[in-house]
Amino acid sequence: MSQEVYVLGGYQTDFARNWSKENKHFSAMMREAVRGALDATGLEPRDIATGHVGNFAAELYCKQGHLGAFFIEAHPVFSGLPTGRHEAACASGSIALLAASAEIEAGRYEVAAVVGIEQMKTVDSATGGDYRGTAAWYELEAEGIEFPFPKLFGKLGDEYDKRYGLKDEHLAAISAINYANAKLNPNAQTRTWYMNKGHALCRTDDNPAVGGRIRISDCSQVTDGAATVFLASKSYAEKYAKVRGVALASIPRIKGWGHHTARLRFEDKVEESKNAEYVLPHVRATVTDAFKRAGIADVSGIDGIETHDCFTTSEYMAIDHFGLTQPGESWKAVEEGVIALGGKCPINPSGGLIGAGHPVGATGVRQLLDAYKQVTGTAGDYQVEGAKNFATLNIGGSGTTSVTFVVGT
Amino acid sequence: MSQEVYVLGGYQTDFARNWSKENKHFSAMMREAVRGALDATGLEPRDIATGHVGNFAAELYCKQGHLGAFFIEAHPVFSGLPTGRHEAACASGSIALLAASAEIEAGRYEVAAVVGIEQMKTVDSATGGDYRGTAAWYELEAEGIEFPFPKLFGKLGDEYDKRYGLKDEHLAAISAINYANAKLNPNAQTRTWYMNKGHALCRTDDNPAVGGRIRISDCSQVTDGAATVFLASKSYAEKYAKVRGVALASIPRIKGWGHHTARLRFEDKVEESKNAEYVLPHVRATVTDAFKRAGIADVSGIDGIETHDCFTTSEYMAIDHFGLTQPGESWKAVEEGVIALGGKCPINPSGGLIGAGHPVGATGVRQLLDAYKQVTGTAGDYQVEGAKNFATLNIGGSGTTSVTFVVGT
Repeated sequence: MSQEVYVLGGYQTDFARNWSKENKHFSAMMREAVRGALDATGLEPRDIATGHVGNFAAELYCKQGHLGAFFIEAHPVFSGLPTGRHEAACASGSIALLAASAEIEAGRYEVAAVVGIEQMKTVDSATGGDYRGTAAWYELEAEGIEFPFPKLFGKLGDEYDKRYGLKDEHLAAISAINYANAKLNPNAQTRTWYMNKGHALCRTDDNPAVGGRIRISDCSQVTDGAATVFLASKSYAEKYAKVRGVALASIPRIKGWGHHTARLRFEDKVEESKNAEYVLPHVRATVTDAFKRAGIADVSGIDGIETHDCFTTSEYMAIDHFGLTQPGESWKAVEEGVIALGGKCPINPSGGLIGAGHPVGATGVRQLLDAYKQVTGTAGDYQVEGAKNFATLNIGGSGTTSVTFVVGT
Repeated sequence: MSQEVYVLGGYQTDFARNWSKENKHFSAMMREAVRGALDATGLEPRDIATGHVGNFAAELYCKQGHLGAFFIEAHPVFSGLPTGRHEAACASGSIALLAASAEIEAGRYEVAAVVGIEQMKTVDSATGGDYRGTAAWYELEAEGIEFPFPKLFGKLGDEYDKRYGLKDEHLAAISAINYANAKLNPNAQTRTWYMNKGHALCRTDDNPAVGGRIRISDCSQVTDGAATVFLASKSYAEKYAKVRGVALASIPRIKGWGHHTARLRFEDKVEESKNAEYVLPHVRATVTDAFKRAGIADVSGIDGIETHDCFTTSEYMAIDHFGLTQPGESWKAVEEGVIALGGKCPINPSGGLIGAGHPVGATGVRQLLDAYKQVTGTAGDYQVEGAKNFATLNIGGSGTTSVTFVVGT
C-alpha cells in the first residue's frame, strides 16, 4: 500500500507580469515562486526534501536547461537537495507533480516542492508560436506554419462540428466566462482586460481568425509565470496539522490521478478515435482513472474543475469528457449555466488559461494550487462555495499527454 | 515499505552511428531503442505499462519537445500509455530512471520502459558546444565562450592541482584506459579509433588544448545514441523469472541509489567546499547514500563502476569520491591498476563516455544497462569476471546534479 500524498499549499506569481520588461532572469521567477510558497505555508526551507521543476522549453525561450538546479539557487539552505525537471509540453507541470507524488508515495521523501515555471515573453510572437510548435510533431505539423497550435485546436472544433455540430456562440460563451472569472482573480493575466460574449462572437478584424475557427478571443495568451506547491507524506502532514492546531482531515490530499499519452499527430488521434465514444478517448480515460482512484463514481462527486482551455475548443472537449454531458452535447452545459461560477460544476473559476494565463510549464501546478485553494475555502472572490473535491485536467500537445488530479479533504 | 525494483535488461544503439548522415529522425532512434529492448528481453509490447524518456536538449538539437510522446510512436500497441520526459542536463537519463523506479516502488505500474536518448550530430561543433552551455548557468558561465564545458572541467582539474597536486600523466592514463576498453565494446563510438597514453600525453596541435588543461584526448565526443532499460516490480519479475525457468535471485535489482544537486556555478561549488573533505561533497553524498541504501559499507562491496568521464578530470574526481583512495589520491588507483579491466575495481569497462560515447540524455541509462550486463555476465569482451554488484555515477553540469545506482543480484 503506497502512502497518501497531502497538499500543504503554495504560491502563484502574478501572471500579468512581464519579467523580461522587468529585466529579470528565469532564476528570479523561481526564487519568488519558492519563497512565496514558504511564506504562504509557514514551512521552513530545511523542511523541503526535494525539488521538482515542470517546464516546457526554457532551452528555447531562455537559452537555459538543467532547470532543477535553479531550484537550488532559490535558497542557500537548499544546496545538495535532489532535483529534476519534467516535461510533457503544456502538461509539464502535472508531469512534475506526478514525479514528486510518486516519490512521496514510495516513501523516498517527506516533503517535495513542485515548481511549474515558464518565461515566454522573451521573444516576439511569431518566434514564440514557432517554439510552441515543438509540442506537436514539429517537422510534420508545425515547421513553416504560422501559429500551428490554434490551427490544431481549430481542427478539434472541426471534428466536433463533423460528429455532432458545433456553434460559435458556445465557444464564445466559454471565452466570456473565463474572462469574467479572471476579473475575480488577483493573479490573472487578463483581470483588467474587457471581454464579453459579444466581443468573443465578433467576426471582424477586431477579433481575427488565427487558425481555422479559432479567433483571438478563443486563445489563451502568452504568459510569464510560475506556481509552487508543497506535497507531503501523511506523517509530515500530521505534524504540520498538529503544530497549527487543525485536524489532519482538513488538509487536502491528492485523492486520485489519471495520466495517458495519445499519438502525437492530431490526425492520428482522430483516426484512432473514429469509432470511439469520445473524440479523445485517452483524455476520457485520464478523467475516469482519476475518479476511480479517488473512489468517486462520476463527475457528480466533483464540486468544480480547473481545466486546460488553451483554446475554447479544448474546454468544450473537457465538458463532455468529464461527463458533464453526453458526448457531443457540451453546449448543453454551457447553455444551462452548469460551468459558470454558481453553476452545478463551475469550470475555471480562476479564469483558466484564457483568463488567468498560460505560462506553459506552470499551468498544471497552478491548476493544482487553485484546486487546493478551492477545497480549503481560500480562493477569495473566485471561491466555489463549500467545495470539497476539485478536479484538474492539464493537456500537452493537441490532446496528446493528459493528466487529471482530484484534490479534496 | 516500498517495493523492490528489478532490471529486466534492455538495448543500446551503436554509438558510432551518425543518424543525421543516415537522414533519420529522432523518432527512428527512439523506435530502434525500444524495439531492440523488446527483442533483447522477450517482453511483449503489451507488457509495458509506462514510458519515461531521459533527454537533455532535443528542443535545441532537433527542434522538438514533448519527447514522451515519441515513446508512443515506437509501437502501435503503446497508444494511451502514460509517458513523460525528464531532464537534468547530462544526468537526464538517471533522472528518468529515478522517476520510473519511484513509480514502481509506489506500486503505480508493473513494468516501466526508460529510454535515454540524444541526437547531437544535427549541428556544427561550435553550435553544439554553445547548446551544451545551457547545462551550466548559460548567461554567467557559457554565453560567448567557445566550448564552455571543457573549461569548467579544466577548472575541476585546477582545483585538484591546488589542493593536492595533479599530473597530466594520470589524466592521460585515464583516457588511454577508456579508449582501450572501448575496443572491447561493439557499441562504442571510438572502438575503431586509436589512442594510447603517448597520444593522450602529447602536447602539440595533434592534441590541442580546448579548455585550460583539458585537451582533445581528455574529452568525450559528440555522440548520437539511445539506450533503453525495462524496470519491473517484484511481482512482475517473479512471473518473468518463472516463465524463463530461472531463479528470481538471478534477476538484478536496483539495490540502492543516491541523488543530490549542488549549486549551479562551478565557482559556487568550490567556494562551498573549500573546507570540506571532498572537492564535490554532494557527489560524495550521492555515492555514500547509494551504498547505504544498498546495505554496502563501502566501495569494497562493489565489483566495478560505470562513471561519468565527460572529461578525464571527472573520472579522476570519481575515483576518490567513490572511496577507492583517500581524497586527493586518485592517482594512486590509476598507478596501481585498480581501475583497469582486471583491476580490483574496474572503472568504465565499457569505455565510458570518453571511449563508448556520450549522447547526453542517454548516458545514465546506458550506464545502468552496462551495470545490468556486468552483473548478469553478459557484457561480452568487457565483462568484469564474477561481478555481483556494479555502481554508476552520472553527472549533470559541472558536478551539479549527481545520481548513483547500485545494481546487483
